[in-house]
Amino acid sequence: MSKTNSGNFFEDFEIGAELVHAVPRTVTEGDQSLYIALTGDRYALHSSAEFARSLGYERETINDLLTFHIVFGKTVNDVSLNAVANLGYAAVRFLRPVYPGDTLRTVSKVLGKKENSRGKTGIVWVRSTGTNQRGEEVLDYIRWVMVNKRDPGTPTGIDAAPEIKRELSPSDLIVPAELDLSKRAPWPSGGRYLFDDYQIGERIDHIDGMTIEESDHMLATRLYQNTAKVHFDQFQADKTRFKRRLIYGGHIISLARSLSYNGLENALGVLGWNGGTHANPTFAGDTIYALTEVLDKQPLPGRDDLGALRLRLVGVKDWDRNEGELSIKIEKDGREVYDPRVVLDLDYWIAMPTR
Amino acid sequence: MSKTNSGNFFEDFEIGAELVHAVPRTVTEGDQSLYIALTGDRYALHSSAEFARSLGYERETINDLLTFHIVFGKTVNDVSLNAVANLGYAAVRFLRPVYPGDTLRTVSKVLGKKENSRGKTGIVWVRSTGTNQRGEEVLDYIRWVMVNKRDPGTPTGIDAAPEIKRELSPSDLIVPAELDLSKRAPWPSGGRYLFDDYQIGERIDHIDGMTIEESDHMLATRLYQNTAKVHFDQFQADKTRFKRRLIYGGHIISLARSLSYNGLENALGVLGWNGGTHANPTFAGDTIYALTEVLDKQPLPGRDDLGALRLRLVGVKDWDRNEGELSIKIEKDGREVYDPRVVLDLDYWIAMPTR
Amino acid sequence: MSKTNSGNFFEDFEIGAELVHAVPRTVTEGDQSLYIALTGDRYALHSSAEFARSLGYERETINDLLTFHIVFGKTVNDVSLNAVANLGYAAVRFLRPVYPGDTLRTVSKVLGKKENSRGKTGIVWVRSTGTNQRGEEVLDYIRWVMVNKRDPGTPTGIDAAPEIKRELSPSDLIVPAELDLSKRAPWPSGGRYLFDDYQIGERIDHIDGMTIEESDHMLATRLYQNTAKVHFDQFQADKTRFKRRLIYGGHIISLARSLSYNGLENALGVLGWNGGTHANPTFAGDTIYALTEVLDKQPLPGRDDLGALRLRLVGVKDWDRNEGELSIKIEKDGREVYDPRVVLDLDYWIAMPTR
Repeated sequence: MSKTNSGNFFEDFEIGAELVHAVPRTVTEGDQSLYIALTGDRYALHSSAEFARSLGYERETINDLLTFHIVFGKTVNDVSLNAVANLGYAAVRFLRPVYPGDTLRTVSKVLGKKENSRGKTGIVWVRSTGTNQRGEEVLDYIRWVMVNKRDPGTPTGIDAAPEIKRELSPSDLIVPAELDLSKRAPWPSGGRYLFDDYQIGERIDHIDGMTIEESDHMLATRLYQNTAKVHFDQFQADKTRFKRRLIYGGHIISLARSLSYNGLENALGVLGWNGGTHANPTFAGDTIYALTEVLDKQPLPGRDDLGALRLRLVGVKDWDRNEGELSIKIEKDGREVYDPRVVLDLDYWIAMPTR
Repeated sequence: MSKTNSGNFFEDFEIGAELVHAVPRTVTEGDQSLYIALTGDRYALHSSAEFARSLGYERETINDLLTFHIVFGKTVNDVSLNAVANLGYAAVRFLRPVYPGDTLRTVSKVLGKKENSRGKTGIVWVRSTGTNQRGEEVLDYIRWVMVNKRDPGTPTGIDAAPEIKRELSPSDLIVPAELDLSKRAPWPSGGRYLFDDYQIGERIDHIDGMTIEESDHMLATRLYQNTAKVHFDQFQADKTRFKRRLIYGGHIISLARSLSYNGLENALGVLGWNGGTHANPTFAGDTIYALTEVLDKQPLPGRDDLGALRLRLVGVKDWDRNEGELSIKIEKDGREVYDPRVVLDLDYWIAMPTR
Repeated sequence: MSKTNSGNFFEDFEIGAELVHAVPRTVTEGDQSLYIALTGDRYALHSSAEFARSLGYERETINDLLTFHIVFGKTVNDVSLNAVANLGYAAVRFLRPVYPGDTLRTVSKVLGKKENSRGKTGIVWVRSTGTNQRGEEVLDYIRWVMVNKRDPGTPTGIDAAPEIKRELSPSDLIVPAELDLSKRAPWPSGGRYLFDDYQIGERIDHIDGMTIEESDHMLATRLYQNTAKVHFDQFQADKTRFKRRLIYGGHIISLARSLSYNGLENALGVLGWNGGTHANPTFAGDTIYALTEVLDKQPLPGRDDLGALRLRLVGVKDWDRNEGELSIKIEKDGREVYDPRVVLDLDYWIAMPTR
């Protein structure tokens, strides 16, 4: 019998089961430096121990998305090694700051599953929770993937999709208790705009672009110990439709978020995501740009120094601004689809100082 | 007179001499993060401080191969700058855990040398020993290289090859005294198989593949401060037979070992190597796969919680599994040679829990 | 109104104004490891905590050029986002060691400005000062750049170029007070040559070469949080004269300095630069070599254990040594210009032990 893990198939997931994912990970200063080198991140909270301390934190915090990628990476081996498609995320919540030296692990619970009508695949929903070395939850999220069936010829008849909260409300969002803006200096972030300056409906073009090389995305994805084969194996990729290694969607989220610093400099961390779509695949050689649309603004319970901005972060590739404003969705054969240059559509909440 | 080091030639090596290699190196969390990003390593002992502590270690240990590459890298400048070929390794022993913050240095002793029959080159044998900041030995190994003669026209007549132990026995292998499996949890490794599950003669195909980019292998080799020109200089490489930069053989060992996690998840560090061969060169663009053959199983003196597995780790490039099982060696012109896709053949011992 | 920073134009700079640059940065062991991986640096002072302590430092110091790049990177957003050309550096002085854990910030003062005769651009001079978390200065330097005017049609008539000291003298150079060579062992550096061995007029060919990949220079430049678009955006670059991403000039300085280890092994840090020129652009695929010319030798006030060497560090690309010695400057159309293979001409001072 084979000693290697060939991943779980649709039939292997049991509703209610807990998957305890392997390879806990101590996140270090080395990971943070690599994250900056790989994405160009400039948010001061993750860059400067002094700035972070001035806000009440112990020291610089691990970038929320680096935490996400590490927590997520552990689930691949058990959840999505046989995934045909990553269908979505929901209710992604960042619950507590992560510091260099913390050790992260992930446990997933199977929330539901549903066989597809043609019987070859099915959809599986899981809630994954990342915890630190003290057992404190740092991140949880729901994700659903389409996975292959082990035995496509035998119908299971399973039709147990869970109810999913598709939108977080401000009361779902957790602001770290230690965050104290009374001593916040404005210069470290370099940004002039605060909560009141952002208007619902406003669109920000973040201007800067980043071209991705094969080494860049593979270094990032290996750093997260994410083992999905499609990102790494060109010899196999040669035989696929795209003939290319696919870039981990999370790398695009990180690039778009890092690019969005230019225009959102005062943002203090990601509070949660309502959902996200990898609208089109990306490949080495693509140049990524980022756009933000302000979807909503809400007060945060118990805080007058901070508000929550709900933003739509759109990643676009190889887009020529001279052609005018980009329509994120276009009509094609009577259906509304993403413009082929749109690669990411993320709906998320950030904390933004009011003063 | 030139102030640059152009390396030692055959005549420069004196039997019994000690070469004290330059550039001690403090190994840090940054190196460990980079090692994960460069190789995709997932062994929990090097990834999680908490898991390592549960086994009696101070914290996560530096990956054995990262230690090897750093200790080895220092010797290049004195031993192999004029090497024509790296002929082999023997009696490679890992003697003590290395932690982030430890400072490594290397000293080599010339064990013997032998002029080749045509008089242009000779073989030099050295034993290299890596020590930490307390002078404790962390690694030693024997290596032999073919080096150019300074004066090919003048025979030296030297024929003093040393006796070399070609196989380590279990009593040569050092298990760290602090390693205590009484509190080992199974979930961090993610593996189901223990010492008794592996059978002599068994072959494991580790499935996953990794395509190498120029940046990847150069970043790794620079991290190890290994200065062998052939890995870095494309302008010179253009004039060589291969017309390509050669990838440092150690990078292939690291990739193959990281790939072998899938099927050997419970392995607790490398105890030693009997020997290793870089069977064919690798270049950027090659995709590496790994196979393991179980060569031997032995108890470890004084331990019933651990056994030693002697494994053959084979690195293969651009191999299509659909063509069936790979013959590592093939017959060519009446001789047995490596299949041209085989790039590594490493014979090594690991520690594997028995329960 | 756009919320993104599109940078300052000539008219925006006010003589005497202070620009407090955003994004303070805690420099870590992770940055140091990446710097080694990106440049191949081998100077023992930055590699070994033990060696650094033997010289009186707290631990290994951050490579001077890594400090430079981080301090410089912060200025780009305010000083040179609209730069047409980086014209020069002067009076670059390294004032104090930087250790892992220190947090750096940068403030620039506008020293002067001068509109160019055609009225479309102007030159701006700034002095930038990097300080640590205790407010101690670690680096200062003067830089001048040609920037676009916001309104090319309206002459400003400004002609206020500052006086600039073009050469540092030994009395301007700061040797860290803690540096104590009484316990310096010779083996860690691996070099045989000390202050007295270097002769004015001597040229050293550092032999080794390094080919640059796109990932390498982008990783480095992102690590420094330097946001100049020309290094990262191939989609835009396709429309430019070069059709390539331009490599950050500082990466070439780092590569040339790391290559120069072979022949200057005992150098103990950079004391200052008189000036530097990026003589020709570099692109991915170029192979960099380094040459050093000894320009001057001076005692350092109050130290007989160290002297100052003034060196010219020349970076050359794709140079075939078989064609004989390189003329750094050549005559072209009656003018003296750089050989097109010369990419860097840096005039700097290092500290070299006398014994």
